[in-house]
Amino acid sequence: MDSSTTKTTNNFSQITIFYNGMIVTMDSELRVFENGAIVIEDDKIKEIGKSDDVMQRYHDSSISLHNLNGQFLLPGFVNTHVHTSQQLGRGIADDVDLITWLHRRIWPYESHMTEEDSFVSTLLCGIELIHSGVTCFAEAGGQHVTGMATAVELLGLRACLTKSIMDSGEGLPAPWSAQTTDQCIQSQKELYAKHNDTAEGRIRIWLGIRQILNSTDRLLLETRDLAKLLKTGIHMHVAEIPYENEVVIDTRKVDHGTVTFLEKIKFLQSNLLAAHSVWVNDDEIGYLSRAGVKVSHCPAAAMRMLGFAPVKKMMNAGVCVSLGTDGAPSNNRMSIVDEMYLASLINKGHEAFVTGTTDPMALSAEIILRMATIDGAKTVLWDNEIGSLEVGKKADIVFVDPCSWTMAPVHDSISSLVYSMRTENIVSVICNGKWIMKDKKILTVDEDEIILQAKTASKVLLERAGIIIPKRMQMI
Amino acid sequence: MDSSTTKTTNNFSQITIFYNGMIVTMDSELRVFENGAIVIEDDKIKEIGKSDDVMQRYHDSSISLHNLNGQFLLPGFVNTHVHTSQQLGRGIADDVDLITWLHRRIWPYESHMTEEDSFVSTLLCGIELIHSGVTCFAEAGGQHVTGMATAVELLGLRACLTKSIMDSGEGLPAPWSAQTTDQCIQSQKELYAKHNDTAEGRIRIWLGIRQILNSTDRLLLETRDLAKLLKTGIHMHVAEIPYENEVVIDTRKVDHGTVTFLEKIKFLQSNLLAAHSVWVNDDEIGYLSRAGVKVSHCPAAAMRMLGFAPVKKMMNAGVCVSLGTDGAPSNNRMSIVDEMYLASLINKGHEAFVTGTTDPMALSAEIILRMATIDGAKTVLWDNEIGSLEVGKKADIVFVDPCSWTMAPVHDSISSLVYSMRTENIVSVICNGKWIMKDKKILTVDEDEIILQAKTASKVLLERAGIIIPKRMQMI
Repeated sequence: MDSSTTKTTNNFSQITIFYNGMIVTMDSELRVFENGAIVIEDDKIKEIGKSDDVMQRYHDSSISLHNLNGQFLLPGFVNTHVHTSQQLGRGIADDVDLITWLHRRIWPYESHMTEEDSFVSTLLCGIELIHSGVTCFAEAGGQHVTGMATAVELLGLRACLTKSIMDSGEGLPAPWSAQTTDQCIQSQKELYAKHNDTAEGRIRIWLGIRQILNSTDRLLLETRDLAKLLKTGIHMHVAEIPYENEVVIDTRKVDHGTVTFLEKIKFLQSNLLAAHSVWVNDDEIGYLSRAGVKVSHCPAAAMRMLGFAPVKKMMNAGVCVSLGTDGAPSNNRMSIVDEMYLASLINKGHEAFVTGTTDPMALSAEIILRMATIDGAKTVLWDNEIGSLEVGKKADIVFVDPCSWTMAPVHDSISSLVYSMRTENIVSVICNGKWIMKDKKILTVDEDEIILQAKTASKVLLERAGIIIPKRMQMI
Repeated sequence: MDSSTTKTTNNFSQITIFYNGMIVTMDSELRVFENGAIVIEDDKIKEIGKSDDVMQRYHDSSISLHNLNGQFLLPGFVNTHVHTSQQLGRGIADDVDLITWLHRRIWPYESHMTEEDSFVSTLLCGIELIHSGVTCFAEAGGQHVTGMATAVELLGLRACLTKSIMDSGEGLPAPWSAQTTDQCIQSQKELYAKHNDTAEGRIRIWLGIRQILNSTDRLLLETRDLAKLLKTGIHMHVAEIPYENEVVIDTRKVDHGTVTFLEKIKFLQSNLLAAHSVWVNDDEIGYLSRAGVKVSHCPAAAMRMLGFAPVKKMMNAGVCVSLGTDGAPSNNRMSIVDEMYLASLINKGHEAFVTGTTDPMALSAEIILRMATIDGAKTVLWDNEIGSLEVGKKADIVFVDPCSWTMAPVHDSISSLVYSMRTENIVSVICNGKWIMKDKKILTVDEDEIILQAKTASKVLLERAGIIIPKRMQMI
């Protein structure tokens, strides 16, 4: 980027033009301007096209001009399933079975968090999201939404924040098991009233259902109806492990599992974001498709913890599938750039178990890029404003340097964004018309200070929660 | 690292001590010094222990002292299967079927390479290897070993270089199909005489067999005998795809595939590095184990192109399994750091197809770290000198900064090296007692200049080979 013409403030109240870069619009025609320019005014995209064409039309000396010198521009990535509250717990549950993971690590950790912990955790997670090119995310559901919202406002990100409610289920930690259905619904209403459409419109409040085994039928139905009333979305973990389906079959008298039951009670709607959706059969894929449910596929968590969702089948059935990182103790990298790479690999490899060989053509680079951008925006019900670089949409933009050893040589510019690009290549990020990272430096918060705070807060939290991580190897 | 005490030259002819860091030795007792020190003299490790203990014993003012400030030190990683010659071809074969991949992209590319192309390609690949903490690699087999060797000497890396020979097979490009068995064997002898034990002992020459479908029985047997005579290893692609096994069953009259046939002709020996070894049955795992064959597992290439090797089964049977990146057109990231992360994920996920759920405890962080270090060294028959940080071994060391947003907070230091660490965290590398990268700057070659050369060389090579990469999306 041409630093001589760089503005000192971080927003674009005047007209700003970025030119001489490859602009991957992700619009409905998948247009790519090989030597393109994009014009930003305030928080919106004013124009987009070939550099020569655009530059001819803007002569005003007050215009701020930035030479991209061959950088690639993309719409900001959308991470559709991330537990910001779990960032302080990265590494607390590696190489353990699922019961240990949940009962002895994650539940004690989350149930002992404070509002302040959630704030610090979201800040730390936000730093990682920004470095990996994310401008918008869907919180998977924590307990302290005010802490999250305060952090998101500071970070300059866009987010659909969610409190994850639970009114039943065995073995829940004490602070959670005491919640009645009415209290759960009431807390959602209050959070919506307090935080929805705040931070210059960057924060939206969604309703959260942790998962079916922690929900009464009344909680599900009232959540569905409240979401309709508030015109917002519902974020829920769906069909994560075979055990979940088995319990649903036993207790709720359906012949397959969670998705079949949710279909039966008319919970499946186009505002439902179903995270994971690994263990679904063909009938259930049909239900998801017909209802317009959106699925967040989290490749790393799938491989490590859950199993392989039938992503290609869902896409063929017309289901909108996007990408999520899940939380830090499930992954542990919170980079949508890595998830793009993984999504391609595991869905190519997945076929080895079906046909005896992999399908190297499954989930092409174009499809993966759609999952991380426009289909992510559809998943969070925000595609009228974000997810592609188009005139009138919000200026949420990622700047990629393709010239380093991590990507060179670039023979196939689109596939290189999926298979070669790493977080190292993400150099700058604009969200809502403002720089949030420039030349790898985050402008909105103090990165080093947050890392220090996070180290202290997480240590204290683990002690409070009584979580002990066994030592490995022979520590001396 | 304390820059005030940093030496200006890049080797350690005097005694140098690094202290106040976590030293992960990967020795047979898996000792980790939480606040440790390591002493280097010339190209070797002179001492290792707790910082206090070590510092008490060295008082000479001529000693060079380096405060690690909490960095993690590991043995240099060993990448046991990498096609350095394919680096210029990154991205030339994404999202294509295997026939297109081989016949229309890789063969034309490789058969049109010059010695100079191989030199530049190895330099570019070497930069990526160093940035990802690799100090030693096993070349999978290209055509121009002199080009590779010249590059490796400059880069300061350690390598087992290999020419990949072929004396039969359908559809081979013209320059390759004319080779007789005698010519193939003769060229191996010449390369060995010219390059083995050069570059201060950092370069060793191995014998290469591309794969069984391009080898007569005589080529296999003479290679086996020559390797024994020269006391060197053999690097060969083994049981990559089901088709390979099928052809072997048809033409070589055995009941399973490549490994069964190689057992029959007594080709399986402890000096064989069998790359991939995906399609092997239980009997064949037994043959590999009893013969002491080493396997290079390449997780990304496995998922994308080949299928899932029975890694856990092989390990349980006592087979030494290490990690490789494969070549740039098969992956496209050449980072052993990413392969560690992937190896853990795909082998945890692999179980989902066997048992219905994943096994989150499969291939623990300790095992993955062994694959990338000491088991890598065993694979390349060099574990008497490298693969662990032990007194008397070569000083091949990786310096990791665990304090950035990519790893913080670190609750489980060993697992964080596998699940959270990225190439960004590799800050410095010593090979054979010399700095080859310091504070992310490669000291041995000019990175920017090589990237420029590689861009030009690869463009010209693709034109010469007649390779056309179709455009994606709607390029304007």
